[in-house]
Amino acid sequence: MKKYTLGIDFGTLSARAVILDTESGYEAAEAVYEYPHGVMDKALPSGKPLPKDTALQHPADYIEALKSVTSEALSSAGISGSDVAAVAIDFTSCTILPIYADGTPLCADEKYADEMHAYVKLWKHHGAQKEADAITALAKKRGEAWVDIYGGKISSEFFLPKIMQILNEAPEIYDEADHFIEAGDWLSFILTGKMTRSVSFAGYKANWVFGEGYPSSDFLRELDARLDTLFDGKLDREITPITEDAGVLNEYGAELLGLDAGTPLSLPIIDAQAGIPALNSVREGEAVLILGTSGCLIWHEKKRLDIPGILGHCYAPIAPELYTYEAGQACLGDGFDWFVKTCVPKSYYDQAEELGIGIHKYLREKAKKLAIGESGIVALDWFNGNRSLLNDAELSGMILGITITTRPEEIYRALIEASAFSTKMIIDEAEAYGSRIKKLCISGGIALKDEMMMQIFADVLGRDMLISSAKQSGAYGSAVRATVSAKLCRDIFEAAGRFEKPIAKTYTPIAENTALYQKLYEEYKALHDYFGKGGNEVMKRLKKISKG
Amino acid sequence: MKKYTLGIDFGTLSARAVILDTESGYEAAEAVYEYPHGVMDKALPSGKPLPKDTALQHPADYIEALKSVTSEALSSAGISGSDVAAVAIDFTSCTILPIYADGTPLCADEKYADEMHAYVKLWKHHGAQKEADAITALAKKRGEAWVDIYGGKISSEFFLPKIMQILNEAPEIYDEADHFIEAGDWLSFILTGKMTRSVSFAGYKANWVFGEGYPSSDFLRELDARLDTLFDGKLDREITPITEDAGVLNEYGAELLGLDAGTPLSLPIIDAQAGIPALNSVREGEAVLILGTSGCLIWHEKKRLDIPGILGHCYAPIAPELYTYEAGQACLGDGFDWFVKTCVPKSYYDQAEELGIGIHKYLREKAKKLAIGESGIVALDWFNGNRSLLNDAELSGMILGITITTRPEEIYRALIEASAFSTKMIIDEAEAYGSRIKKLCISGGIALKDEMMMQIFADVLGRDMLISSAKQSGAYGSAVRATVSAKLCRDIFEAAGRFEKPIAKTYTPIAENTALYQKLYEEYKALHDYFGKGGNEVMKRLKKISKG
Repeated sequence: MKKYTLGIDFGTLSARAVILDTESGYEAAEAVYEYPHGVMDKALPSGKPLPKDTALQHPADYIEALKSVTSEALSSAGISGSDVAAVAIDFTSCTILPIYADGTPLCADEKYADEMHAYVKLWKHHGAQKEADAITALAKKRGEAWVDIYGGKISSEFFLPKIMQILNEAPEIYDEADHFIEAGDWLSFILTGKMTRSVSFAGYKANWVFGEGYPSSDFLRELDARLDTLFDGKLDREITPITEDAGVLNEYGAELLGLDAGTPLSLPIIDAQAGIPALNSVREGEAVLILGTSGCLIWHEKKRLDIPGILGHCYAPIAPELYTYEAGQACLGDGFDWFVKTCVPKSYYDQAEELGIGIHKYLREKAKKLAIGESGIVALDWFNGNRSLLNDAELSGMILGITITTRPEEIYRALIEASAFSTKMIIDEAEAYGSRIKKLCISGGIALKDEMMMQIFADVLGRDMLISSAKQSGAYGSAVRATVSAKLCRDIFEAAGRFEKPIAKTYTPIAENTALYQKLYEEYKALHDYFGKGGNEVMKRLKKISKG
Repeated sequence: MKKYTLGIDFGTLSARAVILDTESGYEAAEAVYEYPHGVMDKALPSGKPLPKDTALQHPADYIEALKSVTSEALSSAGISGSDVAAVAIDFTSCTILPIYADGTPLCADEKYADEMHAYVKLWKHHGAQKEADAITALAKKRGEAWVDIYGGKISSEFFLPKIMQILNEAPEIYDEADHFIEAGDWLSFILTGKMTRSVSFAGYKANWVFGEGYPSSDFLRELDARLDTLFDGKLDREITPITEDAGVLNEYGAELLGLDAGTPLSLPIIDAQAGIPALNSVREGEAVLILGTSGCLIWHEKKRLDIPGILGHCYAPIAPELYTYEAGQACLGDGFDWFVKTCVPKSYYDQAEELGIGIHKYLREKAKKLAIGESGIVALDWFNGNRSLLNDAELSGMILGITITTRPEEIYRALIEASAFSTKMIIDEAEAYGSRIKKLCISGGIALKDEMMMQIFADVLGRDMLISSAKQSGAYGSAVRATVSAKLCRDIFEAAGRFEKPIAKTYTPIAENTALYQKLYEEYKALHDYFGKGGNEVMKRLKKISKG
């Protein structure tokens, strides 16, 4: 019997594969592939400059990634493609591209090589703010129910604003595209030959609501008469539930991956949720915190709760019969990286090099010696806008309390604290609306490496933080999910229980620290509300001025 | 006839001397001496650590500086000490020290070498906030008139809080000190053997008011019964007006400087005002902007205007019969230096080095390519507290509008703009209370080197900025002032007219830029008022928490 499954996790900068040996319960191999084009935010491959707030990717990178990680993982596991029982993919979202009917991306067409709107718009592409605002305004005017389910405001990161930006700025591309599709669904399409639209992408990013569908044609026509054609194939109304697979590999897909034709391909899901099975957190009251380039808190509810400012919830995107909620920071690791690249002096790099450690570790070592509140600094972590609870990409970051004796590690620690404060805001708000988070699990590099950050989170949240030993939890979780498609497990509950990664460490809040952080949190909250809820819309005005 | 005068300017990090040839009207020589102990804010010379908010200096550095710059300047001018007709000194303020009756500083006494309160407290020492608050509170309770003349609030940088901190934390030093004295007056004392208290220091920093004197003994007793002894010699009530000299060099002073005994020594004045004669801005409506480690706007009025939040005005501290007003930024060059040391990445230093230019110049080159408002960033420049119009050392800096694409030059430019905005706030407020600034003159390294900053100031203020060619305007201005003591000029008006340094360049506002900056200024002002005037006292609360 085929006892291996393959999970492939497509992140912002790279794709990672894990092969799971379902007999031993261990990974048989891992492989990583960095996208050669990375994130294109300054220029197209031709060198043509891109406008501000643009973030594109090249779809050819994904195909290369599929080939590279699969062949490397198979070879490293010492197994043949025929040993793989099923494959599951997860992908960033909303990451979309325009394609022709045969699946060819428009940017692969030479005549559109210099047209930015022919490329993949990455989740963090923020060029469609105008369109997002128009959608929100109209939805509120018409009293559309879905706008409240999506946090009361449509993010510029969503599907519809991104399509509308194409319509407005490159109507030819809009007309020429046979489909607009999530990159995850696009991979399913080319690997199986069958078009599916995963509930996971549709339900979080495309304003689709279980039992209600997409926004009505009437709404779309009022938004822009040209959107009349959107549902004529460009965007299919039919959504595939999590209980179904995307399909099976066709000849092309099998050859690309080096697996057998007919191998089941699970329905693709959002990368941020892919690790959940590895953390065995698929039941009500179980939450998972994902700290990556952005931050995401995910939890499940048996009943639908409408929590204001919570960007997404979806019926059964990962576990059957449970609503899964998602909220978090639009910027997390991205922000720390920005900080070390932009704001850390040469002397620190020199000292880190001398000690033979990375700059993040060097800063953490210094930051962890600081007492709580010692720096006098509080930051608003909106360096990439705010995703929850304000759901506003036009907000920006702020650092307050700087003096001429402020040191880089003080700001660095304030950024970490800000991410903990904004997580606390989300949990507090969710619980005020009826949630009960009973278990908080976290995985990933930051969780395993950054003891200071984990203790700060435990202290700020006043909760135990369970650190999973899962390292590539996205790809691993996808491999676990594939065991259901492979019929090696009955359902996701069994799979998650059987293949859960053990808890490596638990961080417990220190009561004294929690009390001190409560004071700083009050300050964060007051600034959050002042700048985020209309007290002073300076951030939005400055952003408008900056766009000229 | 002796035709040379000597001016010595004691700044925060170094002293500079200029010898003026009054016949040619040119400098005959210049010399600089950096204080070996610099600013002691981390530890005493013994290595004993210092608490937060402490900024001390070593008085021995000043004596070495006197000797060094005078002998170097004389030798460089190729003249003898006997050719010098008069000397004038200017000094930072409020920079005070406790001394014995013979002029010996207490820190020179071996038993106090490890006692921080025996040393010079530099103007930017901020350890006396508690005391400043107590003085303000009591003065307001009692309805003391002088508190309004001093901007409605007593700064921790002032004379009285600094003395009170000594009383509270080192009562033995308070008891042992025969005098507490401004460092500028101390130098007069040891050079002439005669104790004087310059109107310039007393009238700006010691709550002394022309025609009214110091705060009453009654007030001091209510503040702290132990202050009963303050006026028994520790602080003389007699203030010397600007129309009188400090005295003439005695044998000790003459030997120290290598000049003739009997050489007139002008009354010392605040360093920030020393350059004014060189800029020929000693009449009503003439303002001088000083951009150094801190920022200062100085102008004169025939009538006394009580402008809220303007830290200092004084009757005739530099020109007879004119009130001279002073307001500005507690942090300017200090802030830029903090930024380049703390927040500028290695890659920028590497590139600057490759181009063979300094880091400030490298950042300016990048910053000047930015359009107004392009960065989307506005900063509050309170990295060292706010000196005007809020007069509150407990405020702190803020940077708002940061995104993950923010570059260092964008923040750098925002800091420069913030200093222009805060200057505009001062001028607007002054004019609202009756001032009319007709001429705005500026000198110094920044003014001559930083074209971008000067154009930003002209654009933000909507005024011509006249850049003086004076390079060491402090020391040069002191040398000009000495011509009056030498009786080579009738008065300061004649001296300033005769020895004015020519205008090197005039920056004229560009109407379009002024209109754009008006929008950003509105944002700055709203944030200024919100954080500075009680809308949200987060900065003060955070500072309190940070002090533990």
